[in-house]
Amino acid sequence: MKNKYPELFQAIQKYNNIILVTHYSPDGDALGSMAALAYALIALGKTVRLYNQSVQPENFSWVPLPCVLDNELNKLKDFPAELLITLDCGDESRTGRELLPLLQNKKTLPWKDIVVVNIDHHFGNSEFGDLNIVESDAPATAFIIGELIESLGLELKDEIGIGVFLGIYTDTGAFAYPSTTAKSLEMGARVIKNGLNIREFTEKLSNTWTLNRMQLWGRLWQELELCSGGKVAISKIPHAYFEDTQTTSEDLEGYASFLRHLKGVKAVLMIRERKDGTVKASFRSDGVINVQQIAFELGGGGHKAAAGVDSNLDMQTFAGKARILLEQYIR
Amino acid sequence: MKNKYPELFQAIQKYNNIILVTHYSPDGDALGSMAALAYALIALGKTVRLYNQSVQPENFSWVPLPCVLDNELNKLKDFPAELLITLDCGDESRTGRELLPLLQNKKTLPWKDIVVVNIDHHFGNSEFGDLNIVESDAPATAFIIGELIESLGLELKDEIGIGVFLGIYTDTGAFAYPSTTAKSLEMGARVIKNGLNIREFTEKLSNTWTLNRMQLWGRLWQELELCSGGKVAISKIPHAYFEDTQTTSEDLEGYASFLRHLKGVKAVLMIRERKDGTVKASFRSDGVINVQQIAFELGGGGHKAAAGVDSNLDMQTFAGKARILLEQYIR
Repeated sequence: MKNKYPELFQAIQKYNNIILVTHYSPDGDALGSMAALAYALIALGKTVRLYNQSVQPENFSWVPLPCVLDNELNKLKDFPAELLITLDCGDESRTGRELLPLLQNKKTLPWKDIVVVNIDHHFGNSEFGDLNIVESDAPATAFIIGELIESLGLELKDEIGIGVFLGIYTDTGAFAYPSTTAKSLEMGARVIKNGLNIREFTEKLSNTWTLNRMQLWGRLWQELELCSGGKVAISKIPHAYFEDTQTTSEDLEGYASFLRHLKGVKAVLMIRERKDGTVKASFRSDGVINVQQIAFELGGGGHKAAAGVDSNLDMQTFAGKARILLEQYIR
Repeated sequence: MKNKYPELFQAIQKYNNIILVTHYSPDGDALGSMAALAYALIALGKTVRLYNQSVQPENFSWVPLPCVLDNELNKLKDFPAELLITLDCGDESRTGRELLPLLQNKKTLPWKDIVVVNIDHHFGNSEFGDLNIVESDAPATAFIIGELIESLGLELKDEIGIGVFLGIYTDTGAFAYPSTTAKSLEMGARVIKNGLNIREFTEKLSNTWTLNRMQLWGRLWQELELCSGGKVAISKIPHAYFEDTQTTSEDLEGYASFLRHLKGVKAVLMIRERKDGTVKASFRSDGVINVQQIAFELGGGGHKAAAGVDSNLDMQTFAGKARILLEQYIR
């Protein structure tokens, strides 16, 4: 395979001490990209350190990493880093509060001449690196990493294969999102051909629900409301429900998206009550219906398909106002 | 592509009037295989009729078929059929009550010299055809059909692509089941390359939940029980819940599998109360834990990973007995 990124290729050949960084609260693509690239660099004889502002998330604790994931920059201060590669970070701030000021004024980094490479697939990446490999057409950063690793002459197998597959699989919603490309399915096929045990993989990835979480979702599902002639689903989450079911707002991960399974539902509004009685609301739509304007009128903002509001209103008042706007804008 | 099945290839070249049959209560693989093959045969200039004992299911009403799906054999009696191809039928009985006696004693078919071809991927297929294309390694019948269609010189695109993709996607649980092969991902990649709109596809496929169904699941989730130290989830479904939520047992499709998302849960028992107060119970496991023996002791049977019981006991009594056995067998 030809080297699609000659400058990156040269940098990897030139430098031996490399730090990999992904965004805080890492998702499957961030962790998978990091894992795959780390194992690949080690296979090439490099010395690698891993940094993330957050710890490895509980639901991804099974993802193999070749060394400790440091979450204090201080722990890396004696490492003679020459190259810092950020993965899946749309802008500098995604690297976290410790690295952000250092990236903004590179000379204050403990490593004065360090070269920063920014590898990402987010549209509108701020291109903060000395070298920027940004492919907004790629379904996942792990897909870019997969191409890079293959161009380095390595196969997508074992831990490298798991990392690449994890990133693509999670960022395409299991090959279901519009971003899913033929090439990403083909890359998945190569990983399976190289021996990935897909039963074990999906079991580790999917079997992560607690009974508490299911009870929370169950209660919310029983109380779902539809409006705008069935085109919008509204879910209200009183703060007390978290205490009742011993859950946290993290247990709502994926909840709004799931409501899009409702037939005819084109948009979803999730209103979460905070402990102090104020609310945080999230709109999600099919990308055809524009929820940005509705969020704006409620004091928030966002994009056409995903918008949000932080409001000081109480949940019932907010829900009432939102409902009137929804009925008005979406018919 | 070379013709992997020369006899089938010859039969398709030789005969012009072809009936396609899939199993009753068709799933995505049955319907997808039928749709893809039908469009392909028509593209080759054949005359095709489609038969299924059941009507096209509501949740698959969007799947394009090139002609009416007849569900009374009588409607086909004037068709001069030469070839009958069964798709995704593990044995004759899966073709339904009308065709079964005819297949068992072929001479009584309205078409005396008809050639029966049986294309399937189920392990242990009874090979009831004059020609049997049974590939138990294939993740879906639609995968076999995809290979066949490509060997006939046609591309997996448009309606053919939708049919093939639907079959593979649904029968592999969206490329997640152990049966997912590299070749099936590669075939999916070719369909996407040929223009499948995956956003529209998954939207049609997934956005099929009714609010009633979500309310039923929500209620059941709130009442879930764990046993065997968290390794088994038990869900009891009183008959009244269907009336309360205006649902039917069809709304439980996929329910037992979903419970496997619970962390640490290796087996699931779903006990559904019938209107007369008796129960129908289903066990599902990860394939490592054997649920067949437990079902057997309760008067049922099945396989290691999937077993069932029809019982005259009432729900509470049955649940109590099952729980004792589960605690005994699964620790």
